[in-house]
Amino acid sequence: MPPEGELRYPSPPLTDSTTTIDDEAGWVWAQIKAEARRDAESEPALASYLYSTILSHSSLERSLSFHLGNKLCSSTLLSTLLYDLFLNTFTSDPGLRVAAVADLRAARARDPACVSFSHCLLNYKGFLACQAHRVAHKLWNQSRRPLALALHSRISDVFAVDIHPAAKIGKGILFDHATGVVIGETAVIGNNVSILHHVTLGGTGKASGDRHPKIGDGVLIGAGATILGNVKIGEGAKIGAGSVVLIDVPPRTTTVGNPARLVGGKEKPAKLEECPGESMDHTSFISDWSDYII
Amino acid sequence: MPPEGELRYPSPPLTDSTTTIDDEAGWVWAQIKAEARRDAESEPALASYLYSTILSHSSLERSLSFHLGNKLCSSTLLSTLLYDLFLNTFTSDPGLRVAAVADLRAARARDPACVSFSHCLLNYKGFLACQAHRVAHKLWNQSRRPLALALHSRISDVFAVDIHPAAKIGKGILFDHATGVVIGETAVIGNNVSILHHVTLGGTGKASGDRHPKIGDGVLIGAGATILGNVKIGEGAKIGAGSVVLIDVPPRTTTVGNPARLVGGKEKPAKLEECPGESMDHTSFISDWSDYII
Amino acid sequence: MPPEGELRYPSPPLTDSTTTIDDEAGWVWAQIKAEARRDAESEPALASYLYSTILSHSSLERSLSFHLGNKLCSSTLLSTLLYDLFLNTFTSDPGLRVAAVADLRAARARDPACVSFSHCLLNYKGFLACQAHRVAHKLWNQSRRPLALALHSRISDVFAVDIHPAAKIGKGILFDHATGVVIGETAVIGNNVSILHHVTLGGTGKASGDRHPKIGDGVLIGAGATILGNVKIGEGAKIGAGSVVLIDVPPRTTTVGNPARLVGGKEKPAKLEECPGESMDHTSFISDWSDYII
Amino acid sequence: MPPEGELRYPSPPLTDSTTTIDDEAGWVWAQIKAEARRDAESEPALASYLYSTILSHSSLERSLSFHLGNKLCSSTLLSTLLYDLFLNTFTSDPGLRVAAVADLRAARARDPACVSFSHCLLNYKGFLACQAHRVAHKLWNQSRRPLALALHSRISDVFAVDIHPAAKIGKGILFDHATGVVIGETAVIGNNVSILHHVTLGGTGKASGDRHPKIGDGVLIGAGATILGNVKIGEGAKIGAGSVVLIDVPPRTTTVGNPARLVGGKEKPAKLEECPGESMDHTSFISDWSDYII
Amino acid sequence: MPPEGELRYPSPPLTDSTTTIDDEAGWVWAQIKAEARRDAESEPALASYLYSTILSHSSLERSLSFHLGNKLCSSTLLSTLLYDLFLNTFTSDPGLRVAAVADLRAARARDPACVSFSHCLLNYKGFLACQAHRVAHKLWNQSRRPLALALHSRISDVFAVDIHPAAKIGKGILFDHATGVVIGETAVIGNNVSILHHVTLGGTGKASGDRHPKIGDGVLIGAGATILGNVKIGEGAKIGAGSVVLIDVPPRTTTVGNPARLVGGKEKPAKLEECPGESMDHTSFISDWSDYII
Amino acid sequence: MPPEGELRYPSPPLTDSTTTIDDEAGWVWAQIKAEARRDAESEPALASYLYSTILSHSSLERSLSFHLGNKLCSSTLLSTLLYDLFLNTFTSDPGLRVAAVADLRAARARDPACVSFSHCLLNYKGFLACQAHRVAHKLWNQSRRPLALALHSRISDVFAVDIHPAAKIGKGILFDHATGVVIGETAVIGNNVSILHHVTLGGTGKASGDRHPKIGDGVLIGAGATILGNVKIGEGAKIGAGSVVLIDVPPRTTTVGNPARLVGGKEKPAKLEECPGESMDHTSFISDWSDYII
Repeated sequence: MPPEGELRYPSPPLTDSTTTIDDEAGWVWAQIKAEARRDAESEPALASYLYSTILSHSSLERSLSFHLGNKLCSSTLLSTLLYDLFLNTFTSDPGLRVAAVADLRAARARDPACVSFSHCLLNYKGFLACQAHRVAHKLWNQSRRPLALALHSRISDVFAVDIHPAAKIGKGILFDHATGVVIGETAVIGNNVSILHHVTLGGTGKASGDRHPKIGDGVLIGAGATILGNVKIGEGAKIGAGSVVLIDVPPRTTTVGNPARLVGGKEKPAKLEECPGESMDHTSFISDWSDYII
Repeated sequence: MPPEGELRYPSPPLTDSTTTIDDEAGWVWAQIKAEARRDAESEPALASYLYSTILSHSSLERSLSFHLGNKLCSSTLLSTLLYDLFLNTFTSDPGLRVAAVADLRAARARDPACVSFSHCLLNYKGFLACQAHRVAHKLWNQSRRPLALALHSRISDVFAVDIHPAAKIGKGILFDHATGVVIGETAVIGNNVSILHHVTLGGTGKASGDRHPKIGDGVLIGAGATILGNVKIGEGAKIGAGSVVLIDVPPRTTTVGNPARLVGGKEKPAKLEECPGESMDHTSFISDWSDYII
Repeated sequence: MPPEGELRYPSPPLTDSTTTIDDEAGWVWAQIKAEARRDAESEPALASYLYSTILSHSSLERSLSFHLGNKLCSSTLLSTLLYDLFLNTFTSDPGLRVAAVADLRAARARDPACVSFSHCLLNYKGFLACQAHRVAHKLWNQSRRPLALALHSRISDVFAVDIHPAAKIGKGILFDHATGVVIGETAVIGNNVSILHHVTLGGTGKASGDRHPKIGDGVLIGAGATILGNVKIGEGAKIGAGSVVLIDVPPRTTTVGNPARLVGGKEKPAKLEECPGESMDHTSFISDWSDYII
Repeated sequence: MPPEGELRYPSPPLTDSTTTIDDEAGWVWAQIKAEARRDAESEPALASYLYSTILSHSSLERSLSFHLGNKLCSSTLLSTLLYDLFLNTFTSDPGLRVAAVADLRAARARDPACVSFSHCLLNYKGFLACQAHRVAHKLWNQSRRPLALALHSRISDVFAVDIHPAAKIGKGILFDHATGVVIGETAVIGNNVSILHHVTLGGTGKASGDRHPKIGDGVLIGAGATILGNVKIGEGAKIGAGSVVLIDVPPRTTTVGNPARLVGGKEKPAKLEECPGESMDHTSFISDWSDYII
Repeated sequence: MPPEGELRYPSPPLTDSTTTIDDEAGWVWAQIKAEARRDAESEPALASYLYSTILSHSSLERSLSFHLGNKLCSSTLLSTLLYDLFLNTFTSDPGLRVAAVADLRAARARDPACVSFSHCLLNYKGFLACQAHRVAHKLWNQSRRPLALALHSRISDVFAVDIHPAAKIGKGILFDHATGVVIGETAVIGNNVSILHHVTLGGTGKASGDRHPKIGDGVLIGAGATILGNVKIGEGAKIGAGSVVLIDVPPRTTTVGNPARLVGGKEKPAKLEECPGESMDHTSFISDWSDYII
Repeated sequence: MPPEGELRYPSPPLTDSTTTIDDEAGWVWAQIKAEARRDAESEPALASYLYSTILSHSSLERSLSFHLGNKLCSSTLLSTLLYDLFLNTFTSDPGLRVAAVADLRAARARDPACVSFSHCLLNYKGFLACQAHRVAHKLWNQSRRPLALALHSRISDVFAVDIHPAAKIGKGILFDHATGVVIGETAVIGNNVSILHHVTLGGTGKASGDRHPKIGDGVLIGAGATILGNVKIGEGAKIGAGSVVLIDVPPRTTTVGNPARLVGGKEKPAKLEECPGESMDHTSFISDWSDYII
């Protein structure tokens, strides 16, 4: 089944043909609250934290705005200012909530270490950086660029995740571990993409126009991979950990090494059957690749 | 001499056959205090910092608890809460102090830039992240998982060191520079291991069970190396900087490149004579390797 | 035109033969204030931030000291102490201002995403880490080493940029994105160098003497490149992204891969015509390199 | 003209018969912004403060919510939580804005040291404590008593103004200097009242029911006056500084001394012609009183 | 029944002849937790605050230490240091817990506005200042005077309650409202005393020896009363609000006015039947006094 | 000897005919450092505080600027801004240092509870508020009124001491305890004056011109005294605690009561022989006064 930007996670139990996106968000938010309530009961030392970040809030947007405002504030950019900015932006664009819910489901479905939605909401710097980026991106598109860049800078300082506010990012994204991710100004990322830590979607440094990678739906990019220039990574492709990719990669193929080579060869590369961005299978090519190992 | 999990650093001067581990910790703590006192005298601008972090405390555990509590706190996880948590955990398990002392000695012995024990205690994010991880690991094993994960998240935010609280780590560990280290849930690290920055001990993404590397005693892992999957890195092996390792590595061999190859070849790899985790010799294989350089 | 440590950026419009370095700094500072004023007017939510960091200050040094003091402070190293330290150091050594101005111009000239001087001053962690490093380096040379190392530690925590205070760094430097940069104690970096994120200038771990790379003027080091040992990277050389370099690289040549190879071959490497540290052309060697791509 | 709860300050210049309360608030807010803009221009060191507290906000309610949230927050009651609480309450009850505007006008009209509306908004602890009290009072009436009491406690800690959240306070109130004011649970204060610092409206301590003073419209209570028990201070009365009042005071009379006596005598007390709460004439009774001075 | 330092509040319901002081403290602590739990459930916005201050703690001492540490800390006296200091002192001297419990019961019994034990514990600056004073007093007696004075200064800054650390204070004390209370170095306060705000127990300024008032058991001191010099206020006496007392006051008499006079006259003063420190009857003397009112 | 604005404290031991004011300040600063050093040695828990506030600074002005900056800062008025403001003002006007030294000596000489200069410098809110006021006063005279008023507001919030920045205050001033002091815009205070807590130098509320008291040299104003209107308190007069003064008071006389009466009678008031502002004898008039006591 091809990745098409449609989210393929199991629907909430109550879903039927009339389920709307709001139901979905409501269901996830109800899960988060239930998880937090359970954790607060079992761990009093954490209850204050869970109440302030989740249980005292009436919606996912308010919880996220509070949490991001407190994480990203500094002595010169106060938490109240950021809280207000996040809350206003989340409220004005329901698409941001939809994307956040899709990202939460992506983390839960793809990362075996993700034990709950609330764990992702509270603790995943990749998730938090991505939601804050979406707000910065919106500000950028509203020509509020100095503010977008200030937010960008805070995200980079606090999470060590550096996503230019102009970069376009789809939904159902998993930034796993996330430390050291760098994504340039003209990069575009589709839906249902999974990106590990230390991944670079960089420019060529030469031009000032469209100069960063375009990542198709359902792509998986392994830890430490570097993709440079306005290249196209086809839908459902897999980029091996540590690869350095300077050329287009066809859909549903695997690329490994530095410089990166297509597994199976340029002419007739091996085709993947499942969507790696969702299966998160980093290493199934190991048997194919072992021939290159001395 | 094989790495066996025994610490081989020079004993404190007063050591004799009756020296206990407590003497060792006491000796190191006395050194730290003497260093801090000397620095406070020579640098009044730093004296306040040295008194609050070291000189006002009666033990290494209290100093560490104070320092970690203040480093890892946030507006929603207060320093007093964390201080209490650290102090209670350090006090309840003397093994944590033993491991901290072994790590301090490792940094001092292996890193030429480590000018004093107190320098490591105060300034080494790898050391601090490792001690905080040990507390998170203990909480994890006590089934206090939400708290362990919250701590994990703070360590990742503050130090850019991402060690899953379930990961098992030995003692005498040096995380050098440490930024960007990622260690997955089922990883195991032996004793006397040295790990440079940007190192990944990652999962395959496929399975949800035991899916991360097992690192033997005395291993040295160079900067930016990526080791993926439930592979075994044998005792005293050396993983070259930037390597991408997807297979087992025999003891006392060297692995380099992306994809990683054994120096000397698969069949008859060159054998190391000293323990690289302790000698920190990253580059002695350069002559062997130069054949591969164009 | 060879890189020689002379800055080649367009002079300020009013420059004539009597222009001094002070005029240059004055012109850049005036630009910064004008940019900040324009941004404060168009974005009231950011005006407070812009006034506190830039518009309330009478000089670049005061602005930088304030901004760094607030960014790098912690509960045990107060902002007032750091502010004082930065301001005294910047005031006592005009060379630090000259270098800061050269770095600002480098970012503006080489990074297409750098929309203004003030954007760099406020938001570029690489720029800020570099200025703070210069202060730490000065303290180191004044034998105030505990203070230099404490500052080093704060820079590494806050910016995830780890530059040993003893490392020597020229001027006109661009640390682009900067997260994860590690530069060792005996490293030397010339003028007009551009260094991307995740770059390591590391030691061999073996010796305790001079053990880190020497980077010539005008060099460009791509993202994730690892250069280890006391090797010499010649003037105007280009180190490809993800390279692992263990040997000297001749001037104006390009090195790629892991292990790194000279583009064009060891015997007769291709010679670059422009200075890559300034042109920031990361990928022009792609055609040369594509032969290695499967 | 008797004090009747109608505000008698000069209307804004544009007022005509159709002027509404919203116009009034709008006019005052516009004045505040103009004042702050002028001050920001003349004093760059204060511009950041003025932008964050006033100039970045779109309404008086937002400015007040921000300012109070930042003033009253603590490490366990975060500014974002308080900001949210204030903003929601101010938004839900337009009467709070009306009262705030009346108080601003009162300070401006009655206190010669009040140089501008913005000076009062930013700097008058009495004004700020009163606005925060009104929010606490609303919470109290909504049976959110623990929250009301927590807010009460913060107001008392931060401003040294202790007003029980159940106390009823009119509009057009000036708390001048304000330090040490204590107002008990069942106290009621009318409109256009002026209260100096160290004033106590206390209980008798005996009963638990209605046990605190009732202050009529237009009353002036001098510094350090203590009024105890469920006594009635008539409209337009004046309570001399340092008085200790345990009995009812007739309208438009003056009370002085400890214990308090009516100026002119019990039987035929001297009658005031103007409203002391608005004229702020503390000492016109001096000639009457001097007979009592030895 | 005379005040004798014995606490006369109703015992906890489970008390019988074997009830110890520990049972009493345990019962009050259980009440506090139950109250906080109820409030946290009814008011989610406050739940985080209630968990961090009360519900996450295992004892009254830990809760108090946390709360005081966070209230009294400053940028130069960190919360962790104060928390540690409070916890160690409370733990080392069970008498401090006994006194705290007696004070909690006093507030609950005497102040009609005190709706719960937890309300007093969290919100009463008089209660908190008194507990912190007891710790400062202990430090003073241990000759840790600079620390005692630093704590004294923080209490005065934060609560506007200024009690010299050498002053001796009994148990079952109610400082009602508390703002502006000043108690000098050689003052002594018995048990079951109630003191309103703005009360001064001051020195004569002349001598440097024993120069402050001695307050007997069960005394009630009204708001704004000033007692100066080494005078003796007898058991069960009542000092009227605003009195200025420079002479001894016999037991169970009432003093009013400035200068203070005995109600009923010097020779045969009216005798009180109940203990005013506990009944809190500030104003029953009003009928007696009214003769003096013009 | 009449109070004439000359400071009469014992000179430092090394003083001879050539001693200048700078020597005096130097001697006091040396004392402060010696005291702090002794306290830091005896109390490690306080050493960090003592180093940051005193021992790391090279002058009294820097220490005061640091301490005030950290005490008076808020989330919207940063410590670095205030530190800078204080340091620049203290440096530009040596008279401020002279006055601070005179105030330190006054506290040491007159307050038996003042155990050391450093105790006053660190802990006396009256001393700190007065030094901060002098800076605000200077700003006021430089027509930087919004900044002066913002500082005024912070002093009132933090210390509960409310001195209008326009008020003129001499040197050798002791504000003892200080909580609740209120001093109006046109008040003038001479040299060697001692003012207890809760003292008001208030306006009449009627006029907007010169409307506050003028306090002569050497005056002592007791706790809770209220002086209202443009009245003149003659040199060396004593105002009894709790007095309410509305008329001029002749030099070297004593005033007591509410309303205030001259001790000895209007016609032939008793004359004081020593300077009460320096002897701090609050209560020697007690025998004279006792006739009025019932």
